[in-house]
Amino acid sequence: MSEHNQNSNDSILKKPMTRRDVLRLAGTGGLGLLLGGSAVGGMFAAESHRKTEAAKVPSASEDQVPFYGQHQAGIITPAQNFICFAAFDVTASGSNSLQKLFQSWTAAAAAMAEGKQVGEESSNHNLPPVDTGESVGLTPSRLTITFGAGPSLFDDRFGLASKRPPAFKDLPSFNGEQLEPQWCGGDIGVQVCADDMQVAFHAVRNLARIARGKAVLRWVQEGFQRSTQADPTGSTPRNLLGFKDGTVNPDVNSAQDMNKVVWARGNDGAAWMSGGSYMAVRRIRMRIEVWDRSSLKDQENTFGRYRASGAPLGAKNEFDPVDLSAKDEKGNPHIPADSHVALARGDGSIQILRRSYSYSGGIDLKTGQLDAGLLFISYQRDLFKQFVPMQQKLAKSDRLNEYILHVGSAVFACFPGASKGGYIGDTLF
Amino acid sequence: MSEHNQNSNDSILKKPMTRRDVLRLAGTGGLGLLLGGSAVGGMFAAESHRKTEAAKVPSASEDQVPFYGQHQAGIITPAQNFICFAAFDVTASGSNSLQKLFQSWTAAAAAMAEGKQVGEESSNHNLPPVDTGESVGLTPSRLTITFGAGPSLFDDRFGLASKRPPAFKDLPSFNGEQLEPQWCGGDIGVQVCADDMQVAFHAVRNLARIARGKAVLRWVQEGFQRSTQADPTGSTPRNLLGFKDGTVNPDVNSAQDMNKVVWARGNDGAAWMSGGSYMAVRRIRMRIEVWDRSSLKDQENTFGRYRASGAPLGAKNEFDPVDLSAKDEKGNPHIPADSHVALARGDGSIQILRRSYSYSGGIDLKTGQLDAGLLFISYQRDLFKQFVPMQQKLAKSDRLNEYILHVGSAVFACFPGASKGGYIGDTLF
Repeated sequence: MSEHNQNSNDSILKKPMTRRDVLRLAGTGGLGLLLGGSAVGGMFAAESHRKTEAAKVPSASEDQVPFYGQHQAGIITPAQNFICFAAFDVTASGSNSLQKLFQSWTAAAAAMAEGKQVGEESSNHNLPPVDTGESVGLTPSRLTITFGAGPSLFDDRFGLASKRPPAFKDLPSFNGEQLEPQWCGGDIGVQVCADDMQVAFHAVRNLARIARGKAVLRWVQEGFQRSTQADPTGSTPRNLLGFKDGTVNPDVNSAQDMNKVVWARGNDGAAWMSGGSYMAVRRIRMRIEVWDRSSLKDQENTFGRYRASGAPLGAKNEFDPVDLSAKDEKGNPHIPADSHVALARGDGSIQILRRSYSYSGGIDLKTGQLDAGLLFISYQRDLFKQFVPMQQKLAKSDRLNEYILHVGSAVFACFPGASKGGYIGDTLF
Repeated sequence: MSEHNQNSNDSILKKPMTRRDVLRLAGTGGLGLLLGGSAVGGMFAAESHRKTEAAKVPSASEDQVPFYGQHQAGIITPAQNFICFAAFDVTASGSNSLQKLFQSWTAAAAAMAEGKQVGEESSNHNLPPVDTGESVGLTPSRLTITFGAGPSLFDDRFGLASKRPPAFKDLPSFNGEQLEPQWCGGDIGVQVCADDMQVAFHAVRNLARIARGKAVLRWVQEGFQRSTQADPTGSTPRNLLGFKDGTVNPDVNSAQDMNKVVWARGNDGAAWMSGGSYMAVRRIRMRIEVWDRSSLKDQENTFGRYRASGAPLGAKNEFDPVDLSAKDEKGNPHIPADSHVALARGDGSIQILRRSYSYSGGIDLKTGQLDAGLLFISYQRDLFKQFVPMQQKLAKSDRLNEYILHVGSAVFACFPGASKGGYIGDTLF
């Protein structure tokens, strides 16, 4: 795993510690990053990595995630509080233009990750400023900027057709989805995350500005997690459906798990993706008003857990094991076979690394209802062996489908990390 | 002023302390809320009230703003990090329904301000939950919920026509505005602010749910300030145009100033508004791409300040006085007469209390550019003596108009505070 994502608490974060153990350790101070245990799982398993409340002024190391490294930052980095996700379409043609764009973006992203402006300002005030300036005086806020190539980048515009990884293409249609073009696709996807929304916005805006004449924004989605400030106790977060949404994520501190689940290898079919990862993004609108009118019993049967405690149905505590064979006194299974937790768990053989955020985007003009939900993001070594079969199963049978609607979709081949002197995407050219 | 908005640091926050004095005090600990000095002013003067980084678990008093009081919370309360603003249209008819809605909302808002759910859950799990649950386990996060009546509430539906304050009506058209119906108006406006976006979202969603059958959402806009976590030094915040955006706000700790500028009085024409305040809301889109292509010199002449330091043009330091008569060696004024700071300052006779947030709402589908800007909010005793003349002057001549576009607009008569046992709006009926 990447050195820059490994922290000094690695050793005390090894399994099989429970979340409560970790919380107890956190109480002794110094443990800035918590890694969560398992709760709901499936598509709706938000990250439960969280920072405990930091001291007054965060130190540079707590507040900065290095940009350069074996892997890109922002993949196994514990999730920040905010996301501003930007998909771009490339308008320039030719490989040279594209390489120059990645070179400029790399320099800017590395600077911003250190809390610097995207470049030196000129002394000629008759020129536009190099940086738009709204993050001056703010800290790096754990900013990460993660770049990936969409399947359309491998068409005939840039001479990259032969470089397309064999197992990298647009997702198949899934049952029930109602994709809206304005939330789909993109030649390039950029996941920008930070603990300050203004820092994340600044990064996207300056990347878009640097791209002028070479690429244009296709779609942008902001998102949030409940803030660490508001929940210093570090309990399992709840999604916008009100249920505790922990994670069955693999252990990001286990190089073995990450190599198995997340990092692509050279012999997977595309040598340039060695150390990279494939990202799936889904904008999942929640039918909030419908959910809010359903009974607590229906809601709990939908997730397969109790809302208040987060415990699996039939069990007592949040961290009790999910036993799909447990039956009530009438011989019926406690956890319905079509509940979200039952389907997402399956036989446990498929794993993905989730990194999702909630979103709230005003009201949907068509329905007059809140346009809110989940910006689902996952990373995996192979989309078609991991994300696709899991989502096909969920799309077909998940009880949750009555209450959610997939309206956006994109996939990106996220490059390996860049070394100083190199640039993001340099293995591709 | 309201007791609940007055804190124990009142005495040390009295003028004529400078911002730096306050910062110095803050360094000694215990001073949780900073009040800022003056910087840009005008429509683009974001609140510079900020919390310093709190200790691990905020105490109840630091984290809670009492709901009940002489005035509604959320008006002179130091600005929280996030806003979720909701405008509602009433669908029920008759005064009784409306009173019941306000009674239900009052009970829910008071509970949420204490970090509680909106009501007790039933033991019958075949019923929908009373509260949607996504804020369970989160702290109150300084949640404030501020209710106001739009001019349309005083039509013939509720028998309130005779209660409309004489100086309360829809705003006149302003030069250059391009209002979009989906961002305008509303029978009722609810300003929800909190230091946790999930807490703010939860409040709006549950108010909408409680209103079912009586009122529907008309528009919702989320917003942010750069977070206290990312800027523990408390320097003047920058707006999305990259300029330091302090405030010429009156002193919220001065009862005299607040009575003069903010609080309506019984003899202003509507006895029921005594202790309330009139709110103006404008959704101001920034033409970010145009701004970003303009020279630094143009940008500085537009605001009338240097971007880097925030100092008035011709002066050296951010807090140097704005001298509109100062001239350069050629005899030209340092600060252009049509700059934002010159026009907003004027002769200093008009004051308003600003409480604005930045917003970022993905991209504008029509232009493909970022839909970002300012959710301007101000409170005043009389809209037509304060906000309207100031905005007419800005709309006519402000250099900033080249870079901004007013697309949304609403005004609300925000009720006086409710006493325990009473409800928001009870003086109206």
